[in-house]
Amino acid sequence: MKVVIIGGGAGGLPTASNIRKLDKDIEITVITRDNYIAYSPCAIPYVLGQTIKSFDDIVMKTPEDYKENNIDVLINSEVSEIDHEKKELTYTNEGQVKTMEYDKLVLATGGNSFVPPITGSDLDGVFKIRNLNDGKNVQEWVKNCKNVVVTGAGLIGIEIAYAFKELGLNVILNEMLPQIVPKSLDPDMASIVTEYLEDEGINVILGKPITKISGEDKVTGVVIDNEEEYPADMVILATGVRPELELAKMIGCEIGKWAILVDESMKTTVEDVYAVGDCVESYDAILQSNTISQLGTTAVRQAKTCAQTIAGKKSKFYPVLNSMVTKVGKLEFGAVGLTTHFAEQNNIKTISQKVEAFTRARYYPNAKPMDIKVICDADGKIIGCQIIAEERVAERIDTMTLAITEGLDCFDLSNVEFAYAPPVSMVTDPLVLAVEEVSKKFN
Amino acid sequence: MKVVIIGGGAGGLPTASNIRKLDKDIEITVITRDNYIAYSPCAIPYVLGQTIKSFDDIVMKTPEDYKENNIDVLINSEVSEIDHEKKELTYTNEGQVKTMEYDKLVLATGGNSFVPPITGSDLDGVFKIRNLNDGKNVQEWVKNCKNVVVTGAGLIGIEIAYAFKELGLNVILNEMLPQIVPKSLDPDMASIVTEYLEDEGINVILGKPITKISGEDKVTGVVIDNEEEYPADMVILATGVRPELELAKMIGCEIGKWAILVDESMKTTVEDVYAVGDCVESYDAILQSNTISQLGTTAVRQAKTCAQTIAGKKSKFYPVLNSMVTKVGKLEFGAVGLTTHFAEQNNIKTISQKVEAFTRARYYPNAKPMDIKVICDADGKIIGCQIIAEERVAERIDTMTLAITEGLDCFDLSNVEFAYAPPVSMVTDPLVLAVEEVSKKFN
Repeated sequence: MKVVIIGGGAGGLPTASNIRKLDKDIEITVITRDNYIAYSPCAIPYVLGQTIKSFDDIVMKTPEDYKENNIDVLINSEVSEIDHEKKELTYTNEGQVKTMEYDKLVLATGGNSFVPPITGSDLDGVFKIRNLNDGKNVQEWVKNCKNVVVTGAGLIGIEIAYAFKELGLNVILNEMLPQIVPKSLDPDMASIVTEYLEDEGINVILGKPITKISGEDKVTGVVIDNEEEYPADMVILATGVRPELELAKMIGCEIGKWAILVDESMKTTVEDVYAVGDCVESYDAILQSNTISQLGTTAVRQAKTCAQTIAGKKSKFYPVLNSMVTKVGKLEFGAVGLTTHFAEQNNIKTISQKVEAFTRARYYPNAKPMDIKVICDADGKIIGCQIIAEERVAERIDTMTLAITEGLDCFDLSNVEFAYAPPVSMVTDPLVLAVEEVSKKFN
Repeated sequence: MKVVIIGGGAGGLPTASNIRKLDKDIEITVITRDNYIAYSPCAIPYVLGQTIKSFDDIVMKTPEDYKENNIDVLINSEVSEIDHEKKELTYTNEGQVKTMEYDKLVLATGGNSFVPPITGSDLDGVFKIRNLNDGKNVQEWVKNCKNVVVTGAGLIGIEIAYAFKELGLNVILNEMLPQIVPKSLDPDMASIVTEYLEDEGINVILGKPITKISGEDKVTGVVIDNEEEYPADMVILATGVRPELELAKMIGCEIGKWAILVDESMKTTVEDVYAVGDCVESYDAILQSNTISQLGTTAVRQAKTCAQTIAGKKSKFYPVLNSMVTKVGKLEFGAVGLTTHFAEQNNIKTISQKVEAFTRARYYPNAKPMDIKVICDADGKIIGCQIIAEERVAERIDTMTLAITEGLDCFDLSNVEFAYAPPVSMVTDPLVLAVEEVSKKFN
């Protein structure tokens, strides 16, 4: 059997590796447009900010490494045609057009950065950050910059803005919506992060879109909300990612509201065609309806499921909660489940509570404040959690992810055991304090 | 209604505070032998090692603070008699004998350090560390010490040994059993901690008991295993805690294998008598039988349940998993559930796996190695987890505690979502790597 995987990101390559772990004989080829593979795009901002020395450090494997594992990875290669009746595809590689047969096809085509329809978005000095080449281009261009504007205050936008600040540049972080991280944080939590970014010297401009990027050949400034013009030597568009669906449509895979429809074994609606990663829809564990979960962790888990399916093993991809975390400077923040806004938009009444706690015993040196918000539905069932502190956020998000996955309510969780020692936690864990507080609202 | 609570530790005082939160009118008196209250005994080693400046820093509240909340705390007071038919107790306070009536009685009498039957254990310079006064006495005595011996390599023993090392002393850490932390760590995990302690310069002597403490008036040395004598200016007995049961027996409370028997609402077998903390037996969530859980966190949670019961609210104390964590120098380690040895001693067949992972993305600066061992029963159900790393252990133990509480098996957990960003985790979380590895043993 021959499996061809189109796309070499967090969906494609792990699908290949996982198939190989389960089956020594299946022929596996990965075809990717990129020239770099096996790196975490999430690491790009940390290279730009020089926390990680070089882009070379984040590349974990080469095509040769995969070859050792009997996986062919064709880089700089783009699939142009698929004849699924014949099970044959056409691709170009360094100008040459070639064909390849397959038995099973995996679409791991990812997504493309959304470029908002703004005058000037095609100027030199306007970048998106989607892959390692983008990162290298930005790294080169930034050397001659003083003023940069990042538009889109999701995780990547914030991380990039902070990276530029670390380089000593004047940075504007702009977001059309009235808060940063609108997908994952409630306004009261987002404002804590905003304040931190402002304290670090980033000019955060919220609730206003960029309406024009100025410049002749290269960018010289941006106009925000048709009003003020700000000087800019570089503009980063961090305005989201749209699934790449062209090949899926060519084959006739059914497309949902946003992306390719797959079942829980990662099969598309077309026989012998599978799909994983940013180009598929996932099922939301709380809303019980389709969603789009463009996270590396989701892609990696889907890849595992897809490989199990192809290798003929029991496989199931579970509904998602979109658990996320990042660290920007000293500040770590993360979230899981629904925001208050998103829940209510979906007709879920919420009861929530924000508490302030500490990362260690109050009296222990370097105990840091920790802000936690827990969001419950009207029955007390936990549907979301957001945490901000200088340490120990990620794993608490994981605990809450498990709590939500298991359907716990705030009363249940307030009785669960938590480990304690003064250097690493409070005697009553911040999470317990939070669920105890929200529990009171149900009395 | 008047409630009298005997004992001012992690069981007694939180019972008082929790009752007050639920009911403004109940009269509450706490009677304690101690002169300091409302501190975390777990913090004592960190004061001795000068990480925390002073014992004053760890005392969170005074009797006057409790008085403001309409709770009477009588310090330096010892209950000598209880006439439960009359509901009257007799106590001494500064030489004066007094009586007090009550409606409900809470026994939070804790435990006493076990003093092994060794010649010389009554010499000056031999200490146990149970309360803040013990800590202060040790702090004073250690000023004139060069060589110290700590016997008993549970958490407190290790923490104290490390504290003395930080003071620049020659330290022997001795344990009768062939490994440190025998209650919570498997030998292969314990040896990682042992190696760290040895690298830090502590002389760890395992598998041999102290057979004699030498000295005329004050300690001058210890004999280990009837053989070698080591010089010692101080000996710390960290050889465990025995429940204090005298008053419970006086009243006629039923005693189990180790301690006072209570139901899930913290009632003893005697009407209107409750008990919490180190002096009661808990129910082990995995073994489905009684156990003794002498953890501050257990006491605090029992206090919450006991207060709910007394205030006439719904209350339930859940079975325990004895989740624990500590940090010694740079090394954080924790555990939850059963060790392999303890499981097999209880006729539970185990299948386990130890993996080595990292606390951050491999390429991220300061990514630290993390050792994780996951222990499953023969069906793959997770029954224990042990983790060692320089950071981010405690919350992972909490996630595993919740996983065990919810009855997850290793296959379930390997599909759960975990949050990822290069500065704070690996794209596949160390916990997932561990459960994936152990899962393979079931194929």
